[in-house]
Amino acid sequence: MPEILHELTVELGERSYPIIIGRQLLGRQDLTSWVSGHQVMIVTNDTVAPLYLEQAIASFPGLQVDTVVLPDGEQYKDWSTLNRIFDALLEKRHSRKTTLVALGGGVVGDMTGFAAACYQRGVPFIQIPTTLLSQVDSSVGGKTGINHPLGKNMIGAFHQPEIVLIDTDSLTTLPPREISAGLAEVIKYGLIRDLDFLAWLEQEMDRLVALDAEALAEAIFRSCRCKAEVVAQDEREGGLRAILNLGHTFGHAIETYAGYGKWLHGEAVGTGMVMAADLSAREGMITEPEKTRVVEIVRRAGLPDTPPEAMTPDDFMRLMAVDKKNVDGRLRLVLLAAMGEAVVTGDSAPENLAQTLSVFCH
Amino acid sequence: MPEILHELTVELGERSYPIIIGRQLLGRQDLTSWVSGHQVMIVTNDTVAPLYLEQAIASFPGLQVDTVVLPDGEQYKDWSTLNRIFDALLEKRHSRKTTLVALGGGVVGDMTGFAAACYQRGVPFIQIPTTLLSQVDSSVGGKTGINHPLGKNMIGAFHQPEIVLIDTDSLTTLPPREISAGLAEVIKYGLIRDLDFLAWLEQEMDRLVALDAEALAEAIFRSCRCKAEVVAQDEREGGLRAILNLGHTFGHAIETYAGYGKWLHGEAVGTGMVMAADLSAREGMITEPEKTRVVEIVRRAGLPDTPPEAMTPDDFMRLMAVDKKNVDGRLRLVLLAAMGEAVVTGDSAPENLAQTLSVFCH
Repeated sequence: MPEILHELTVELGERSYPIIIGRQLLGRQDLTSWVSGHQVMIVTNDTVAPLYLEQAIASFPGLQVDTVVLPDGEQYKDWSTLNRIFDALLEKRHSRKTTLVALGGGVVGDMTGFAAACYQRGVPFIQIPTTLLSQVDSSVGGKTGINHPLGKNMIGAFHQPEIVLIDTDSLTTLPPREISAGLAEVIKYGLIRDLDFLAWLEQEMDRLVALDAEALAEAIFRSCRCKAEVVAQDEREGGLRAILNLGHTFGHAIETYAGYGKWLHGEAVGTGMVMAADLSAREGMITEPEKTRVVEIVRRAGLPDTPPEAMTPDDFMRLMAVDKKNVDGRLRLVLLAAMGEAVVTGDSAPENLAQTLSVFCH
Repeated sequence: MPEILHELTVELGERSYPIIIGRQLLGRQDLTSWVSGHQVMIVTNDTVAPLYLEQAIASFPGLQVDTVVLPDGEQYKDWSTLNRIFDALLEKRHSRKTTLVALGGGVVGDMTGFAAACYQRGVPFIQIPTTLLSQVDSSVGGKTGINHPLGKNMIGAFHQPEIVLIDTDSLTTLPPREISAGLAEVIKYGLIRDLDFLAWLEQEMDRLVALDAEALAEAIFRSCRCKAEVVAQDEREGGLRAILNLGHTFGHAIETYAGYGKWLHGEAVGTGMVMAADLSAREGMITEPEKTRVVEIVRRAGLPDTPPEAMTPDDFMRLMAVDKKNVDGRLRLVLLAAMGEAVVTGDSAPENLAQTLSVFCH
């Protein structure tokens, strides 16, 4: 029997939607009431399809359900792979009353959401995230898109899902490296906005890494709630929402440098948060022991805390120059104003940034 | 001196924007107040660039103005050409405070608008339409997008411009065939919603074809006003807005059949309106003399009134099956409920449609 453990709503007026967190939901939770037309296109990848596609199809009894299976990996988050979704929709003659369903991790969710935003100028979509990273972060908040050779997520749209269905059972098939990557974003919420949650994570990290279902559901719920609160206040990232990018500016530079798919997004964010904490300490915003606390929790989650060996400060500067947060050529970073409190700033001292980069680059 | 002849507002709440119609506006009307950042990317094509790009650049004194020149033609309204805009934006390091400017016809406007909708998940843009078709139709209302091999405008977004600047002087360099194509959409407004305007057009058609500036400005103003009213009531085409597609379902089939760029969009719409009038007459909605009135005004505008010679009824049925108006596989068409009144219907008798197609196909 499906067991719903937590429920919450992302409050966005007429675009509000529920997040349902539980066990045995996949294939057992009927989702037809979230579909307005008669057609559904489930988008997944070749890793997830053998595990969960049949179950996902079973969630839409009585409807025309078509599927498209993409290759797995961030390196496929590009236009030509996206176009396979459009090909499938047009070949199967899906009208603009169709509903898309993203079944998979962040890449599948971002691409399916963007396809939904663009197909016939916009159709609804449903998020069924199957990785920890996508469950706590990318499936919530409506950011969708693809990569461009010159920058990650440079082409996309804000497009909110109809519902997010999170089945923690899908985490049992996830490689440990992917669990760690998801924990990077979980830790992030504690660092930017919720000191209690950070303390809880320090206490429960071993259970989380060991895939304790109850602990995971709790961590997912608290992460989604944190993200939902921020998104409700600033849907289109006019200001506050940017704090969700703690560690992401350094992290994106690492991902781009390494080549899409080499470092997992969460791994890059883990290292990025350590670098952001180092710079925050140099700026006098947090203490050395607090910085060490960041390093410790990142390590305990099984995440790397140093960038690729050959990467230089110049590589960072060049790659960070195209970050979306930048305004009129000025680099802007998310730093820790204190533990549990993030700030977006373009005012950090260039010599402090240079020192951070020099310490982390070999 | 710039001379503003008409001004109106597209009323869309916080997305409202003005349409300014006049003479000698290009290069003389300062547009910097419509730009929020310091960067502008003007997108145009290789036909328009030699004529008006310098003037357009002069409209943004004191800003970083970059330009990208695309090949001219509907056959380039695809992803790879769109990507040249993203390449230029990223190479010149445009932030998400940049403003895009569409300088050209409908293809440039649709692609620039879609690039603006997607670049870093959405940046503002300005429309400077230089063809009659784009001045009376595509620059107003926020429909943006590109073609897919399986269907026109299948990938896109609703994204409203900051302002539409219409300089009727740009029509003096337009080939007569393009003037006729624009007049197809002008006639459309008379047919679907404004019988007075239709009568005015029957009276003034010779002046319009002869490029009388005052008559053109009046026709553009009344067309934009009609479109603005419809868009204000139904921005995302939930219902009413679909009437703007009179002649477009037949027309899109013709364009796809002929291959993008062979028939001008307005030419296909001209023939499509004649076919829609024929079907409306068979459905008993308008009289034979009223149908003839449609044929006459389309011919007087210099537009074709029969589809490509080798095109069959089966070609039409196949190509119309992917139209965006269709719901769950059912063909929907815009017909004339009466002269000056359009209706969207899925209820026309299949034998009437078959007869219309058989009469128009050789």
